[in-house]
Amino acid sequence: MAGGGGDLVSNKQVIFRDYVTGFPKESDMQLTSGGTIKLKVPEGSNNAILVKNLYLSCDPYMRILMKKGDDLITSYTPGSPVTGLGVGRVLDSRHPYFKEGDLVWGTTGWEEYSLITAPQGFFKIQNTDVPLSYYTGILGMPGLTAYAGFYEICAPKRRICFHFSSIRCSWSACWPIRKVVGLLCCWKCRKSRKVDLLKNKFGFDEAFNYKEEPDLNAALKRYFPDGIDIYFENVGGKMLDAVLLNMRVHGRIAACGMVSQYNLEKPEDVCNLMSIVYKRVSIKGFVVFDYYHLYSKFLEVVLPYIREGKITYVEDIVEGLENASAALVGLFSGQNVGKQVVVVARD
Amino acid sequence: MAGGGGDLVSNKQVIFRDYVTGFPKESDMQLTSGGTIKLKVPEGSNNAILVKNLYLSCDPYMRILMKKGDDLITSYTPGSPVTGLGVGRVLDSRHPYFKEGDLVWGTTGWEEYSLITAPQGFFKIQNTDVPLSYYTGILGMPGLTAYAGFYEICAPKRRICFHFSSIRCSWSACWPIRKVVGLLCCWKCRKSRKVDLLKNKFGFDEAFNYKEEPDLNAALKRYFPDGIDIYFENVGGKMLDAVLLNMRVHGRIAACGMVSQYNLEKPEDVCNLMSIVYKRVSIKGFVVFDYYHLYSKFLEVVLPYIREGKITYVEDIVEGLENASAALVGLFSGQNVGKQVVVVARD
Repeated sequence: MAGGGGDLVSNKQVIFRDYVTGFPKESDMQLTSGGTIKLKVPEGSNNAILVKNLYLSCDPYMRILMKKGDDLITSYTPGSPVTGLGVGRVLDSRHPYFKEGDLVWGTTGWEEYSLITAPQGFFKIQNTDVPLSYYTGILGMPGLTAYAGFYEICAPKRRICFHFSSIRCSWSACWPIRKVVGLLCCWKCRKSRKVDLLKNKFGFDEAFNYKEEPDLNAALKRYFPDGIDIYFENVGGKMLDAVLLNMRVHGRIAACGMVSQYNLEKPEDVCNLMSIVYKRVSIKGFVVFDYYHLYSKFLEVVLPYIREGKITYVEDIVEGLENASAALVGLFSGQNVGKQVVVVARD
Repeated sequence: MAGGGGDLVSNKQVIFRDYVTGFPKESDMQLTSGGTIKLKVPEGSNNAILVKNLYLSCDPYMRILMKKGDDLITSYTPGSPVTGLGVGRVLDSRHPYFKEGDLVWGTTGWEEYSLITAPQGFFKIQNTDVPLSYYTGILGMPGLTAYAGFYEICAPKRRICFHFSSIRCSWSACWPIRKVVGLLCCWKCRKSRKVDLLKNKFGFDEAFNYKEEPDLNAALKRYFPDGIDIYFENVGGKMLDAVLLNMRVHGRIAACGMVSQYNLEKPEDVCNLMSIVYKRVSIKGFVVFDYYHLYSKFLEVVLPYIREGKITYVEDIVEGLENASAALVGLFSGQNVGKQVVVVARD
């Protein structure tokens, strides 16, 4: 029930302190007591919902929002809470679709409770027979990104050589992808531990750490002697440059991120772009928000795989908002093994 | 009629001397008397045709074939004639489709007569009410490239801002394209003369010489304050880098060449590739050979425009094989005004 009343409670927050250059540090964020919040949507805030945050997602794109924005990027506001994807419970709603008690996922604040004034990008969680935290990863934005990028953009029609570059291990969890994956390049991973995980637990044919390869072109030639049909681009820079040299004719690249570039002041140079012409390569940039309309269809595909145990999914869960900034910063030095999740509360 | 007999005639040739680095020079080619040739397809050469070359085409891609080849490029053979697209008359044929007297266009030698052992890429010229030389340009490979790139790859569906980069003026001749062109960037053109030609004769809304712009990003922002919907990529390097910054969301790039890179030992660096993600840009490399099946359809579109005088087309014609190498080299310093053609013989 919306409107007046509502308990006044304390609301811890992780505050973004100031624009970041280079690698982010824990001190770029600050845990504060955050004052108090009334657990009701204020009168006049039509369409708003008040959410108790349960699970927060650490994602590489968040680094982009930490630098000073431009006409393309609306960066975090210094002095305000970090925002990111999360799973929560609706405590109060003035939105016709969302009701008190609903479980939801969408972009929320790094705090205990968030007032979401415009929950357009929020989804109601209908299936709760799987862990709720999965909606930060395999059943949330990263999973849908993998699905849209692979099925809508790469659109494989035959057996292919697939090069999957990501630091988001959850992506590898989409079983139909894994079957054609030849290689995963993980970003600054924990040495051989992650490579082993990818090969032995996720079943990739091959895996390597691109940070440890002195010659990426040679590495790709070794792993893909016949070239790469599809490259799922999350790395960029020198990796992309080497990939361009190793694409097959009519190869396709789906690009939704270039994480190796996020902490650089100046992006790395890429010089092998003539390969796009020689090899008739298609590159398509995409952002997952353009594919949110596919979310139901995506769930129909992926939920059965999870229920049947056909998907290997690994989470790296830390407890408490007080550990959130360290978890996020850890992404960029490869500290996490699996999808990095922060538990704010379990119910 | 195929088989024995046939006159023995002299056959002047333009010989490719050795692999080229940097800008090509006239001395990289050499006119020779070329010995003699019998004007008959030799017995046993099934499917071969013997062609008298009439018009030869100078095209930027030929520079690529002048460097030492790799697994992607089969370069010219030092000591053998330069090859390129040309219009010729069939003097003799052992091919079921081509007959003596047929006019054809396809890849031929820079010589008076060529024995084409496998004329798969040859087209019979059926429409001779237009100048034959047009089949080296607007009615040949460059025209089909423009058509395929624009209608098949860029596929405009609404009014758009179009950035057309090319040194091949013939491309601008496709009237339906010109209507949406906002800007043409010509390669090292003859200063204001070509810019004037583009704006006043071809009717481009704007034109600039990218070699004369100190800040390409600023230039594009000036000409495209709302961004670029479609970019027809023929330049590459710094131009592409600036274009990436100025693409609109969901913009498309058709790439069939990067002429600014052909004379460089190391390609220029491009660093704005994250724009592909931010703006959901599609880049598709293509080569015209993949679209040869559209040639009849293309002619149906473009021939009426030519006959009705609705296309502005400019040729730069030089006479004689002895001037061929200078004409080709001239492309790369912007000497030509219009499509560069070499007349070997007029009938």
